[in-house]
Amino acid sequence: MELNLDKHISGQFNKELEQVLSHVLEMGGLVENQLKDALTAMNDLDSSLADTVIANDNKVNSYETIIDEECTRIIAKRQPAAIDLRLVLAIAKTIADLERIGDEICRIVKTARDKYSNEQKQLLVDLDHMGRKVLIMLSKVLNALARMDSNEAFEVYQMDTQIDKAYEAINRQLMTYMMEDPRAIPKIMDVMWATRSLERIGDRCQNISEHVIYFIKGTDVRHFNRDQIKQTIAQ
Amino acid sequence: MELNLDKHISGQFNKELEQVLSHVLEMGGLVENQLKDALTAMNDLDSSLADTVIANDNKVNSYETIIDEECTRIIAKRQPAAIDLRLVLAIAKTIADLERIGDEICRIVKTARDKYSNEQKQLLVDLDHMGRKVLIMLSKVLNALARMDSNEAFEVYQMDTQIDKAYEAINRQLMTYMMEDPRAIPKIMDVMWATRSLERIGDRCQNISEHVIYFIKGTDVRHFNRDQIKQTIAQ
Repeated sequence: MELNLDKHISGQFNKELEQVLSHVLEMGGLVENQLKDALTAMNDLDSSLADTVIANDNKVNSYETIIDEECTRIIAKRQPAAIDLRLVLAIAKTIADLERIGDEICRIVKTARDKYSNEQKQLLVDLDHMGRKVLIMLSKVLNALARMDSNEAFEVYQMDTQIDKAYEAINRQLMTYMMEDPRAIPKIMDVMWATRSLERIGDRCQNISEHVIYFIKGTDVRHFNRDQIKQTIAQ
Repeated sequence: MELNLDKHISGQFNKELEQVLSHVLEMGGLVENQLKDALTAMNDLDSSLADTVIANDNKVNSYETIIDEECTRIIAKRQPAAIDLRLVLAIAKTIADLERIGDEICRIVKTARDKYSNEQKQLLVDLDHMGRKVLIMLSKVLNALARMDSNEAFEVYQMDTQIDKAYEAINRQLMTYMMEDPRAIPKIMDVMWATRSLERIGDRCQNISEHVIYFIKGTDVRHFNRDQIKQTIAQ
């Protein structure tokens, strides 16, 4: 699947569409790096890297504002139709999800500022494992967007089930730890919120995969089930 | 502030804008009722009302799909500019927030399906109190949208601070309960997730207030601080 950018009468319009798409991919790359750094900070309990991640969230927010303005300007000036309009609308939704992923990353990275006993450090191992899966999901959905590949988007869509399972398992375990060592509850709660944030990032990646499918296939699949989405992609 | 609907050359375009706006307000009314019912179900531990709320979330989702299609159609067919375009874009963002509020309500209402000891029922009292505040916030932001009133939108924006404070206070108390009675942790965790969901609904209402201000004032205030927003409204 390729965007028929060369079909546009106006070369300037092409340029604008290409530019806004490349800005989204830049924003996605930044968010991806933020998640990578957040996981590293958590692993190394590196509070200075954690601070950097939190400070960088401003850049993510700026991207959202700028790209949203670009989308509005394109709609107002170019009056796009059909697939061009779908691209602009899918981008407007994608950047909202990326911005929220940025917020969740800031919540996760706070765990890196805590102190943990050697036993408690064990709590972070599963979280890191889950985080690596979510990072792959985020990478893949950005690839799907860059290549306009609905099959890869669908793979991402399906990955969310694994993330949800990992989340449930970690949650159950954290609850057991809390019952065994009530004094550690505040610290375990922090890990629990971080786990929840990771689960939410998985949801957001799934949302983005739905926007990619909408753009390519022209069907809003947000409230479809798995089989309906599969069918949409096969068409 | 009034929409200058009568300035449009096409009477049909007027009708379409009025219709999409009235659909959003219907959707908002539905979500408002859902939150009301969820709080009642929680108070009365009425699991059958809880089931109804969860079943009704489908209707919320349908509204999102339908209104989103209406917005896309208006953009493609009518090529709106200036304030008309801002209205359509603000609506597209608002329905996404309303749909998420619907999801959070389904999480909250699950507490109504649990069994609680008399002592544990106390946990739900503060949650209900916070829920009532959030309900007022939701009501007010829908009023602000219906009346296109940026001052009321700003009031909603500011209410979120109270919600966040209530959330922190309840959280601290729930953590204390957990430490005192570790066997009750799984149940207290359910109440904690519900509290978190309420806090998120507050955030979503704040988002909607930002969309209303964007529509009226033409400035994207999403990453502004309180004073910057105040200034924008005064202009």
